[in-house]
Amino acid sequence: MNGAESLVNTLVDEGVDICFANPGTSEMHFLAALENPRMRSVLCLYEGVATGAADGWYRMRRAPAATLLHLGPGLANGLSNIHNAKRAGSGMVNIIGEHATAHLKYDAPLASDIEGLARPLSHWVRRTISSNTLAGDAVAAVEQASARPGKIATLILPGDTSWGEVTVPSGSFARSGVPAAGVPDAAAVERIAAVLRSGEPTFIILAGAACFGPALDWAGKVAAKTGTRIGTQFFTSRIERGAGRVPLERLPYAVPQAVEFLKAFKHIITVETGEPVAFFSYPGKPSLLKQPDCQVHRLAAADEDSTSALEMLADAVGARTLDPFRQPFIDKGAPSGALNPLSIAHALASAMPENAILVDESLTTGRETMGHTAGAVPHDTIQNMGGSIGYGTPVATGVAVACPDRRVVCIVGDGSAMYTIQSLWTQAREGLNVTTVIFANRSYQILKAEYANMGFGAPGPQALAMIDIDKPAIDWLAMGKSMGVPAVSVGTAEAFFHELGRCNAAPGPSLIEVRL
Amino acid sequence: MNGAESLVNTLVDEGVDICFANPGTSEMHFLAALENPRMRSVLCLYEGVATGAADGWYRMRRAPAATLLHLGPGLANGLSNIHNAKRAGSGMVNIIGEHATAHLKYDAPLASDIEGLARPLSHWVRRTISSNTLAGDAVAAVEQASARPGKIATLILPGDTSWGEVTVPSGSFARSGVPAAGVPDAAAVERIAAVLRSGEPTFIILAGAACFGPALDWAGKVAAKTGTRIGTQFFTSRIERGAGRVPLERLPYAVPQAVEFLKAFKHIITVETGEPVAFFSYPGKPSLLKQPDCQVHRLAAADEDSTSALEMLADAVGARTLDPFRQPFIDKGAPSGALNPLSIAHALASAMPENAILVDESLTTGRETMGHTAGAVPHDTIQNMGGSIGYGTPVATGVAVACPDRRVVCIVGDGSAMYTIQSLWTQAREGLNVTTVIFANRSYQILKAEYANMGFGAPGPQALAMIDIDKPAIDWLAMGKSMGVPAVSVGTAEAFFHELGRCNAAPGPSLIEVRL
Repeated sequence: MNGAESLVNTLVDEGVDICFANPGTSEMHFLAALENPRMRSVLCLYEGVATGAADGWYRMRRAPAATLLHLGPGLANGLSNIHNAKRAGSGMVNIIGEHATAHLKYDAPLASDIEGLARPLSHWVRRTISSNTLAGDAVAAVEQASARPGKIATLILPGDTSWGEVTVPSGSFARSGVPAAGVPDAAAVERIAAVLRSGEPTFIILAGAACFGPALDWAGKVAAKTGTRIGTQFFTSRIERGAGRVPLERLPYAVPQAVEFLKAFKHIITVETGEPVAFFSYPGKPSLLKQPDCQVHRLAAADEDSTSALEMLADAVGARTLDPFRQPFIDKGAPSGALNPLSIAHALASAMPENAILVDESLTTGRETMGHTAGAVPHDTIQNMGGSIGYGTPVATGVAVACPDRRVVCIVGDGSAMYTIQSLWTQAREGLNVTTVIFANRSYQILKAEYANMGFGAPGPQALAMIDIDKPAIDWLAMGKSMGVPAVSVGTAEAFFHELGRCNAAPGPSLIEVRL
Repeated sequence: MNGAESLVNTLVDEGVDICFANPGTSEMHFLAALENPRMRSVLCLYEGVATGAADGWYRMRRAPAATLLHLGPGLANGLSNIHNAKRAGSGMVNIIGEHATAHLKYDAPLASDIEGLARPLSHWVRRTISSNTLAGDAVAAVEQASARPGKIATLILPGDTSWGEVTVPSGSFARSGVPAAGVPDAAAVERIAAVLRSGEPTFIILAGAACFGPALDWAGKVAAKTGTRIGTQFFTSRIERGAGRVPLERLPYAVPQAVEFLKAFKHIITVETGEPVAFFSYPGKPSLLKQPDCQVHRLAAADEDSTSALEMLADAVGARTLDPFRQPFIDKGAPSGALNPLSIAHALASAMPENAILVDESLTTGRETMGHTAGAVPHDTIQNMGGSIGYGTPVATGVAVACPDRRVVCIVGDGSAMYTIQSLWTQAREGLNVTTVIFANRSYQILKAEYANMGFGAPGPQALAMIDIDKPAIDWLAMGKSMGVPAVSVGTAEAFFHELGRCNAAPGPSLIEVRL
């Protein structure tokens, strides 16, 4: 058995049985080892698709996928979606092919400081030193990636360790003992229960694993008993929502609206997140969004078991047996007329299939969507935690690989979609059930608002030339066709609703251009 | 005047009057400052296009362009083509928008260690600390980027330094005194002249600025006088070649062929490069390509004036007044029949417009091209110095912006083209004279050879699934159309030759799919 075979075997033994890959020459032995039928490999035509897909996989499976990337530049191409995954608490194991150790001193053209590139966005970086240590390194990488929250583990694989024979049986591995999610602090729970009992206006902000599963119900019981409001930051890694679920409010994105929203509260209670901060800074506007006299209390840190913490809190306020408020189904009906954020949101809500997963990178056009899909059939939403554009279509790809029985609807701005548009090809190749909805306003529309937010009013011609992407207009029908994804273009709400229903029902990927 | 205006003004004053940009919220003040009519800004839909275009600009202008990128992830997306540019000795000034200084401590979603991401692939990294220091920082960045060889200068621009008013007149700037290209070592020249006079078989390897302009003629004179052979590594940043130019041999890519080629020589003389090393390492194959008894002599380092060094060498061997051998024009005629590397090379040679610039990322299909275009009309070739795939279409974009009066022919494999295919959009937007030739073999064909080179023979089904990109086949007509670039597909040598001539003569960009 060579090192690469040992690596693939060990990854699978440790539960990592999917690899999103963009290989090169230095990874040929890893490719040969992929003949192992226990490992599924999914080819991506760009590394940012692979790392985004690994993020999407984690969001649904809560377990890491592997990526296979080609030396420093291949890692670099995947870094922005690694950043997004890191901010989402998504674990992944990145395998970075590297020159053979003896070749490094010659500084061949593709050589670079891989550790240096990996460290700023990885929690754990290791360079394998021999074929014999690879299995142990793989165990350590998976252990790191599987922590709560998930971690970015990057394993650098020199060619000689990949092709060299394993000569020492690996036996059992010393595990570093990455702790499971920590036990909640009972004293903190009691202090927070006292805050809730005080009746002072309070907002509980849920994040991470607190936004789905039983945690949501416990939060709903606390709200039902105490009258506290419960919600999320503007961006959340995954929310279970829709009819029958405990509904969550959403903090606004824009600084003035967020400040206004939080004025109502004397207390903020955080669960797997911190206090709300502005996404960007603007001249003369605050970074912190709460009022100065608002107190922040942490119920559970990101590495603590927030479900248990919320259950303890429900007990502390005597809410265990209460029925939480559950979102009723709201029939938005078939929309008609012009396409605008409202009619688009209605169409998305009404055409949503049961258990759909909505991956949202819609920025401006989609701003109404979350509100109006709140009463749709049960579904999940997934949002961009790191803010690096180009996360949507790769994450949707990984989500669809992870959940083949569910429909993935990816709503994405045209500007954003262009960063990692190669995702469409993998969706077609794997026959993934993804409906990609492109909001084609032919502009980095959000930047027009941000230009005004910075105090400039309307952009001048040169600035506008860096914001409008209408010359040429991207032909989305052709773009879908180019990568084997059937595409349609719609110009009315009726047509959008109709095509959305049709695409959501058809197996495999499809693309809808929403012409704005 | 605010900091951003001071920055743009200073960049232009220092000679950097082009900016390849992919902006975000934190760069709105820079966008406003772009209303300065002296700065040209070119929008790219992906950061790797912007950094590759800056590389292309430098290759032809020998002066740095600026890029505008959005925080750490925006820089990350541009890093692989920064790697390629660094290896090519191309200077550039990267402006990285960053959160306002006061906002950093809140660790907002887009925050990351920008210095950490920049350092592995930058020669110079600085974070501006105030609007008042921006002009001086810009001077320093341009000075670094303009060194010989060019350097990667990365300037981090916190929002507050961009929007803050400049309150202190900048006056004159202390320059750090980046040296011009160093003076050649007369003693080394004399030692090398002695080697040449010895009559022992010698190969002079030219790189960098020694492959165009007067340096080539001096090298040709030395060869004419001494019988030494002159050539290049397999990859070279820019070569002036074709009829009337001093022709250069090319070291083979594959290790066995390169070793065989170098067996003839007792001496290697390097000019702006090092001794030949294998691009990748393979089990049981050498990293160093020369014979053990072959001596390596450095005539000029990359930071030395190689033109003067070659002139001194010509004088030392008494070759000043000799006529070098010049490549005769070779009419390859109109090819016919099947498309294969030979007929493709003939078509490229015969349809080459005078002064064309051939950007080569063709890997397998193009392997015959350099040999068979050697006797074409005068032209330049540009190759991938860092080995990170996805360099071709961005570099062609920057080359075409730099040389609007010349035709750029970009030959690129289908797999390679998909990494940074967003380049087509910028080519359409700017009306650039680029003919993109896609060699569509629907495979990472080079990896099949590399798989065999690693000793595995033919790939198994799982490995092959990571190499073939035929399911689905990319529809290149649709891909061109999607971004506003007219496209045709050809299946015979005649059709390729005909369409190449037509596209090369038509203003603006076009795309030819060569179906293999």
